[in-house]
Amino acid sequence: MSQVRVHNFAVSIDGYGTGEGQSLETPFGHAQARLMQPWFFGTRTFQAMQGGDAGSFGIDEAFASNWGTGIGAEIMGRNKFGPQRGPWTDEEWIGWWGEDPPFHTPVVVLTHHPRPVLELEGGTTFHFVDAAPAEALAVARELAGGLDVRIGGGVNTVRQFLQADLVDRMHLAVVPIVLGRGENLWHGLEGIESRFAVEAVSSPSGVTHQTWTRA
Amino acid sequence: MSQVRVHNFAVSIDGYGTGEGQSLETPFGHAQARLMQPWFFGTRTFQAMQGGDAGSFGIDEAFASNWGTGIGAEIMGRNKFGPQRGPWTDEEWIGWWGEDPPFHTPVVVLTHHPRPVLELEGGTTFHFVDAAPAEALAVARELAGGLDVRIGGGVNTVRQFLQADLVDRMHLAVVPIVLGRGENLWHGLEGIESRFAVEAVSSPSGVTHQTWTRA
Repeated sequence: MSQVRVHNFAVSIDGYGTGEGQSLETPFGHAQARLMQPWFFGTRTFQAMQGGDAGSFGIDEAFASNWGTGIGAEIMGRNKFGPQRGPWTDEEWIGWWGEDPPFHTPVVVLTHHPRPVLELEGGTTFHFVDAAPAEALAVARELAGGLDVRIGGGVNTVRQFLQADLVDRMHLAVVPIVLGRGENLWHGLEGIESRFAVEAVSSPSGVTHQTWTRA
Repeated sequence: MSQVRVHNFAVSIDGYGTGEGQSLETPFGHAQARLMQPWFFGTRTFQAMQGGDAGSFGIDEAFASNWGTGIGAEIMGRNKFGPQRGPWTDEEWIGWWGEDPPFHTPVVVLTHHPRPVLELEGGTTFHFVDAAPAEALAVARELAGGLDVRIGGGVNTVRQFLQADLVDRMHLAVVPIVLGRGENLWHGLEGIESRFAVEAVSSPSGVTHQTWTRA
């Protein structure tokens, strides 16, 4: 059975997966790059997304590189796709990633405002779907052709799939910063650990990688 | 210069240091023992507090055992001392720990309702002080005779000393449970990590020990 997976999802020590005040210029709001820079930007996986071939091979990379293996489709919230809200006034927007996004699979974008399928280079296609988590997952599974489905974020999207008990595996990077405000992953998830086996391992970069495996 | 230290302070992955609904029967509220049992109860340090001589010697004990070394006094909030609120109606209450508490030093109890010094066995004396953090620290330092001062909790007390920038070293045990409600250590502490060097190390028990050392 194909699995539903979360990867490379960073939260602050107080539980925020993104800061307050997201905009075109600051997609993570006041968190800026502080959730990803300490552990992700130096990895070979991230460097390769930027077209480079350098980067680290340590524990941060060991987790980061699991992101793509066996994945047949991603589901993301509309806010991860772009900064626009409400009806699409500008269908010129093709996502933050340009003509050749790093996904290379179908991507289901959750939105109340559907628009036509967007086909980009390298196998990435964006499908705009107005659906609850279980229904969106059925669409993504069909598109994934038997492979796994990644829940790509943002925070609200991951939380909705956790609340619906649809996540099989989740990798978190817990970053020792106190963001204080933004979107909190744990809001409304009291006691969720009872459904998972949790492992933690610390990295020399200062973050702690947690893996949540559905029991 | 004597240091101000926090030890063996456990927080959930969503930042709560105690649960909701504290009472005589449930001093940690709905968190019950879930913040301490996974890593602390099995240590030799905790077992010794109960009068035993068994217990683990691994990483959890390595951190737990630092609790007493070099400490000359503790400061605790009144809620750690006992469940009563408001004026003391019952001075028979001598704390949760009985006639021979594990502190073996002077203990400053922060309260708006002073009462006489309480001398117990083994060197523990409780001093009831109505003072802000800096002033209470001056009292504790005097009592500590040049040794370090431990901030013993609860959550609000630790947070107040952090807000006043009076903490030199803090050891946290981050427990992978989502408590959802209670007292949150991080409330009002946005950006506090900039004042500290933070290390993290994971334990086979599943918790992550963090040390916050004032830069």
